[in-house]
Amino acid sequence: MDNKHIAIGLLGLGTVGTGIMHIITEHQHKLCKKTGLNEISVKKALVRDLEKANGHGFQSVDYTTDGYEVVTDEDIHVVIEVMGGITLAKELIEKALDQGKHVVTANKDLMALHGEDLLQRAKRNQVELMYEASVAGGIPILRALNDGLSSDQITKIVGIVNGTTNYMLTKMSKEDLSYDEALKEAQEKGFAESDPTSDVGGLDAARKMVILARLGFSTSVELDDVYVRGMTEVTSDDIDYGKKLGYTLKLIGLASKEENGAEVSVEPVFVPDEHPLATVNDEFNAVYVYGDAVGETMFYGPGAGSLPTATAVVSDVVSVIRHLRLGVSANALEDSSTTSLEISDERDVSAKFFVRLHAKDVAGAFESITAVFSKNNVSFEKLIQSPFEQGALAEVVIVTHETTRGDFDQTLEDLKLLDVVTSIKSRYRVEGGTADVLEEQNLALV
Amino acid sequence: MDNKHIAIGLLGLGTVGTGIMHIITEHQHKLCKKTGLNEISVKKALVRDLEKANGHGFQSVDYTTDGYEVVTDEDIHVVIEVMGGITLAKELIEKALDQGKHVVTANKDLMALHGEDLLQRAKRNQVELMYEASVAGGIPILRALNDGLSSDQITKIVGIVNGTTNYMLTKMSKEDLSYDEALKEAQEKGFAESDPTSDVGGLDAARKMVILARLGFSTSVELDDVYVRGMTEVTSDDIDYGKKLGYTLKLIGLASKEENGAEVSVEPVFVPDEHPLATVNDEFNAVYVYGDAVGETMFYGPGAGSLPTATAVVSDVVSVIRHLRLGVSANALEDSSTTSLEISDERDVSAKFFVRLHAKDVAGAFESITAVFSKNNVSFEKLIQSPFEQGALAEVVIVTHETTRGDFDQTLEDLKLLDVVTSIKSRYRVEGGTADVLEEQNLALV
Repeated sequence: MDNKHIAIGLLGLGTVGTGIMHIITEHQHKLCKKTGLNEISVKKALVRDLEKANGHGFQSVDYTTDGYEVVTDEDIHVVIEVMGGITLAKELIEKALDQGKHVVTANKDLMALHGEDLLQRAKRNQVELMYEASVAGGIPILRALNDGLSSDQITKIVGIVNGTTNYMLTKMSKEDLSYDEALKEAQEKGFAESDPTSDVGGLDAARKMVILARLGFSTSVELDDVYVRGMTEVTSDDIDYGKKLGYTLKLIGLASKEENGAEVSVEPVFVPDEHPLATVNDEFNAVYVYGDAVGETMFYGPGAGSLPTATAVVSDVVSVIRHLRLGVSANALEDSSTTSLEISDERDVSAKFFVRLHAKDVAGAFESITAVFSKNNVSFEKLIQSPFEQGALAEVVIVTHETTRGDFDQTLEDLKLLDVVTSIKSRYRVEGGTADVLEEQNLALV
Repeated sequence: MDNKHIAIGLLGLGTVGTGIMHIITEHQHKLCKKTGLNEISVKKALVRDLEKANGHGFQSVDYTTDGYEVVTDEDIHVVIEVMGGITLAKELIEKALDQGKHVVTANKDLMALHGEDLLQRAKRNQVELMYEASVAGGIPILRALNDGLSSDQITKIVGIVNGTTNYMLTKMSKEDLSYDEALKEAQEKGFAESDPTSDVGGLDAARKMVILARLGFSTSVELDDVYVRGMTEVTSDDIDYGKKLGYTLKLIGLASKEENGAEVSVEPVFVPDEHPLATVNDEFNAVYVYGDAVGETMFYGPGAGSLPTATAVVSDVVSVIRHLRLGVSANALEDSSTTSLEISDERDVSAKFFVRLHAKDVAGAFESITAVFSKNNVSFEKLIQSPFEQGALAEVVIVTHETTRGDFDQTLEDLKLLDVVTSIKSRYRVEGGTADVLEEQNLALV
């Protein structure tokens, strides 16, 4: 670089890549002011289709279909990776880091799988690897964890980190759509992929929680450590029961750190209506952070979208350029080694749980059910029993007091063996304080 | 400083100052890891009462009652100001900056009044002045504006930035307390000062909005530029009417930037119940930021409290030390000059408004009232008329369509002159989309 000009290499020119081009072009003045430069430009870009790329009309960018041309260009000091995928993206980033280039990536899959290795490689090469855009695109949450709350001990991170599923759950809750209708609408709006498996199955959220937990707790977390349950089994009936009880159902990513271990999970959870996360609707994301000193903070914003993601990437580029201009890598200061925090057995995780089941309405049925709970040391906080199918069956909804996931799962297994239990319709974790609305609403409590 | 040890000077050892001491002591390991140091210690502290200070039992801190001893100590490289007040704090900070020391302050009054001068002075001395803790203590909002959203154009900042008034409004709304009862409870809980004028009068919020607007828009803003109306006239009746209309009343700080000028205001505003700001309760703060590219983001957390504020201060210290260790001031890179954005005449500000008035229930009363609105080009979005005092009077509540504050104020003046209007009970600005609940609730619409 000369003193007043930085050349960037761009890997990928999809919607995020073109968004980045637009921001760098249109906000050139502000970006230069923030970094003390005269010019920030994209010199070379890896594209799939040269003709299509030329059609965008961006000035003075060399397009190539060979990513190595970008990461080995001597004039380029910062490489942006927004091509997605794992194998090639990883190879190109590794090459860029080894060539002494700083890297900014939006690739959550890659960071979840290989983040630790890549960060160590960046450190060895005395360059920076930034990845704000990989989690909750429009929310500067990694920055908050890394800088804003740097002097605090973070104990818990609770987030809605997948926009597709939050959109679907919002539609199911507010407009009484079925799961299939909600999915269809999410696909029509472009929030859900044609294959929505990684969203509705919870994998996308799990990847983001790995990144958040790793940074928040400075610990080593692998994707396999995450307890994942998607939202594919969620029904409108469950959501309606939640409403009666004062709960909203959300697909929640949770990472918590305790003396004896850590928990990282993604699953549908009932949160009390008054909790700020309950009011995060549509495709928005939010991350709730608990710190020893700061207490509770929440960060809310668009979780995806090409412009929010592009903004996060360019903001990372601004940080990198500032450090670059200062002549030293900030990474070089930090001891970025992670401590290995033991991940608790998922069966030991302590929480409240919700279960909805159908039972025969015969004498002694209720006693057999309660006996199973007692045997497993699980007690009730709330119970609603209502007639079903002209009184032949009873629908029973139970919210437990705090128990372990292991004891709760064992209770469900034991319940299945009872003659009087015809089916277990659903089960969810319940977070946050007791929902006191039950009493107010005078629901039929047994 | 030697290479691996940073000595800090502390101005003030009240609740925030002792909180800082605790964090630096207890999180020493983490702070060192974040900065690559072996030790971060407070060398000297300005206190009011030496005996009381010694009672805290902090090791190896020299206490003094002379602030100049702190800011001129050659071993000290970072000065933290948490003493509060204007005159002496300003003199000490100026001296520290001139001595080449980096400064972190939590002093919003000082930053609102003299922030621009102090930032310029820091720049001249090639040192940093950081002030995250001065706005919404537990929320890293300045960092988000400065770094996380650095590549975006911020167009609007809407915040609940005063915890005392938000606590009072929450109690008035949720527990039907009167203004006086709510104030008393806030004072008992320690949220409100014995003299609550600067909170309930809106001045505290106005100071924070000056700081936010200045940073968010990179523009010059003075306290006098802010339109300020406190919450002293708010009554439970108004809050109840808001509820019927689907609105929550909040003391809102608003800064918006448009082509032809900027607006900065603090006033009680009806926000739709579905808006995230409506769900920010008790003493919590939240700041909503609108960016061209990122869209809407919100940052939520504790607005005050000694530990959240101390956390923000220490996080700023971590940033300063990182830059210090890199050998250059980050400020030195940036062109921090502010552009002068013209502040719009408050009469030209465009918004919806709410007015509640009492009128004689006589023939033609309604026509005279509507005629006054028409004359001033103000049209109704909603109108509720209900009998009052056994039908002798009518209570009329009107929500206008978008109009200017000038036209609305003139309407109120003209209404006062009408014989049929016995009193204008209240008036508020209304933000956000139309509250559609009215129709659903089948309220009596004229």
